[in-house]
Amino acid sequence: MAAVEIEAAKSVEDVMAEMGRRARIAARALALAPTAAKDAALAAMATEIRKATPAILAANALDVADGKAKGLSGSFIDRLILTEARIEAMAAGLEAIAALADPVGRVLAAWDRPNGLHIERVATPLGVIGIIYESRPNVTADAGALCLKSGNAAILRGGSDALRSSIAIVAALKRGLAAAGLPEDAVQLVPTADRAAVGLMLTGLSGAIDVIVPRGGKSLVARVQSEARVPVFSHLEGICHVYVDKGADLDMAVRLVVNAKMRRTGICGAAETLLVDRACAATHLPPIVAALREKGCEIRASQEVLALVPDAVPATEADWSTEYLDAILSVALVDGVDGAIAHIERYGSHHTEAIVTENAATAERFLSEIDSAILLWNASTQFADGGEFGMGAEIGIATGKMHARGPVGVDQLVSFNYRVRGHGQTRP
Amino acid sequence: MAAVEIEAAKSVEDVMAEMGRRARIAARALALAPTAAKDAALAAMATEIRKATPAILAANALDVADGKAKGLSGSFIDRLILTEARIEAMAAGLEAIAALADPVGRVLAAWDRPNGLHIERVATPLGVIGIIYESRPNVTADAGALCLKSGNAAILRGGSDALRSSIAIVAALKRGLAAAGLPEDAVQLVPTADRAAVGLMLTGLSGAIDVIVPRGGKSLVARVQSEARVPVFSHLEGICHVYVDKGADLDMAVRLVVNAKMRRTGICGAAETLLVDRACAATHLPPIVAALREKGCEIRASQEVLALVPDAVPATEADWSTEYLDAILSVALVDGVDGAIAHIERYGSHHTEAIVTENAATAERFLSEIDSAILLWNASTQFADGGEFGMGAEIGIATGKMHARGPVGVDQLVSFNYRVRGHGQTRP
Repeated sequence: MAAVEIEAAKSVEDVMAEMGRRARIAARALALAPTAAKDAALAAMATEIRKATPAILAANALDVADGKAKGLSGSFIDRLILTEARIEAMAAGLEAIAALADPVGRVLAAWDRPNGLHIERVATPLGVIGIIYESRPNVTADAGALCLKSGNAAILRGGSDALRSSIAIVAALKRGLAAAGLPEDAVQLVPTADRAAVGLMLTGLSGAIDVIVPRGGKSLVARVQSEARVPVFSHLEGICHVYVDKGADLDMAVRLVVNAKMRRTGICGAAETLLVDRACAATHLPPIVAALREKGCEIRASQEVLALVPDAVPATEADWSTEYLDAILSVALVDGVDGAIAHIERYGSHHTEAIVTENAATAERFLSEIDSAILLWNASTQFADGGEFGMGAEIGIATGKMHARGPVGVDQLVSFNYRVRGHGQTRP
Repeated sequence: MAAVEIEAAKSVEDVMAEMGRRARIAARALALAPTAAKDAALAAMATEIRKATPAILAANALDVADGKAKGLSGSFIDRLILTEARIEAMAAGLEAIAALADPVGRVLAAWDRPNGLHIERVATPLGVIGIIYESRPNVTADAGALCLKSGNAAILRGGSDALRSSIAIVAALKRGLAAAGLPEDAVQLVPTADRAAVGLMLTGLSGAIDVIVPRGGKSLVARVQSEARVPVFSHLEGICHVYVDKGADLDMAVRLVVNAKMRRTGICGAAETLLVDRACAATHLPPIVAALREKGCEIRASQEVLALVPDAVPATEADWSTEYLDAILSVALVDGVDGAIAHIERYGSHHTEAIVTENAATAERFLSEIDSAILLWNASTQFADGGEFGMGAEIGIATGKMHARGPVGVDQLVSFNYRVRGHGQTRP
């Protein structure tokens, strides 16, 4: 592959600098590309992904074989492995992104000034987006497509264990871009497993990268926080809470807590702490715990909870700020919604929190007084997902408060500018 | 003053850490404060500023005397000096900010999902905003008030030559906050001239600061770019262009160019480069240059322009990317709007650009194809200002593309979160 030849011949610094230059040129073309051209490219990319299924499967088989030989975990291999069905889902995902409304060029606001100036705020692309992600080949297609739809060039740096899979996928995406007359450099993949490439991306490649989207574990987050010289859509932990209020319907509480914790334990929207109103602990806590245990969940209990659930594991202070991403739930009692809000503001990570109650006034306080990206009333925290929000795919979930917050879809991958129409006005 | 006593007794690290802790507590209270309480505080702050006029003038006189003794420039002293009229303008500015709509709690978008979930995106405060600015006492009041209106706590670090003036102003603001029952720590002033305080703010004070607004010259910008560990509303240069198209009305072109360059030469929205369509250079350039020279403007001319304006100063390559902030204008000819767009994309700073033309199609290309924060058609670049945009005061102008772009008013000093209302939905 051409990309691999470049890697062999040049230093990683040269390779990355060249990618940055190409991305900027492509970004300029994408910013001016009409919606129809972007959508035609996404459709062609889906076609090319389907046509390339044998080549992608062959590349993926090599990645998977190496991964197994290295002793990577079962869940890691599960995220890495591709099948015909998964490749078809990837192609369908590209078509779904094509079907979204174009976020670029939308008039976000418009008003007139007393002096006759007409001002519009109009959505524009961000420019070049760098995405640093895990060894999940499907992210390669999703992230490239989300950037394209929003008029941005993408520099993708996926986990090295999926490099051959991603190279095969990006080759198909580039054929789709070319078929639609858009620059192939709209989607570029870092062609090396050298971790120095990540550091170079975090410097912004001499101004070539406008924003970095880091996806991954704590070591990547820490590295981004210390090294990034460009804006970042930060994603810290998801220490998500479910609060069961005394006004909760018991049956609903059981269903929501079990779903929030156990549907999938490894996602950032999985609940990690259950807070139960002292006023209903005696009636509500035992059936909730019983239902969780039936699904195999371990309970880490506060002293008070231990009195009601004597065989639970005693929680330590560290448990209240731990993202288990596993079948473990810390459980504490609180004094009503005030106690829940105080606990969440103290220990939470401002990601996603849910309240279960039939009391609307109590629910509204929870929704309006907690400073988290997503707050839910009588719904599972596992809805913390761009697809579930109706945004189409998401490039990640942001826990920072700047620019984007919560699921980051195409509507969050744009900036804006002001377009002012006058008839000769000068400023007095 | 209490602040000065703290300075004497503690290290700058301790002082700043304490300010960060207090700001976080105040921010929590401000986020929950009703609109009426914030507006009452702003009105009381205006009252207290007026009542404190003698004390503020006395403090300012000391700053001005020291500044003159240090040999600070006349324009520096002009920005530093306060008068009764300027203090009244400061108070009136607080009342104008009180009259703005509250940006917090606004529902930015709302939609329903097929599963019955109702999703709202609601504006929320950013948290704690650190503002680093010049020795301009009026910014102390403006910035504090803009943060308060948008539900944010402010940590203000003004230029050290205005420290006594700012201490007197902030004391009045705190009395206004207290009168309205809001925490005095909502507006805090760094009580020391030690430049280490700036570095500490750029680290974010252990997570206490959510965003930094730097206002100032190139040395501050450079320091922020290399040291900031928190998000920044960046403001780079304003290398603003006016393009006079062959479709321009000559009289309008003369008026707009003169206003864009000469109304005030020291502001970031002042024009620095004039581009004239080759097709109308012979007719349009000489009268524009004559009008500029009549106002005392020096012309730095490209080779072609020198042919039409033989006594102009020859421009060097550096002129095309120089922000003069003075009565100097670089002038070049271009091939129509395409040439103008290419020049601006190559040399501009993505701040503000204007086109003069009667041709709507040409104007729309200029507005839609240039990636700058503000684009104007038949209006002066000097309108690049939050007040002129109808935003009330502005805390600065952002040239970055993340979160805010262009004038940063109260509507840009907020984040958002998602509030999801269900009736027991679990994720399948």
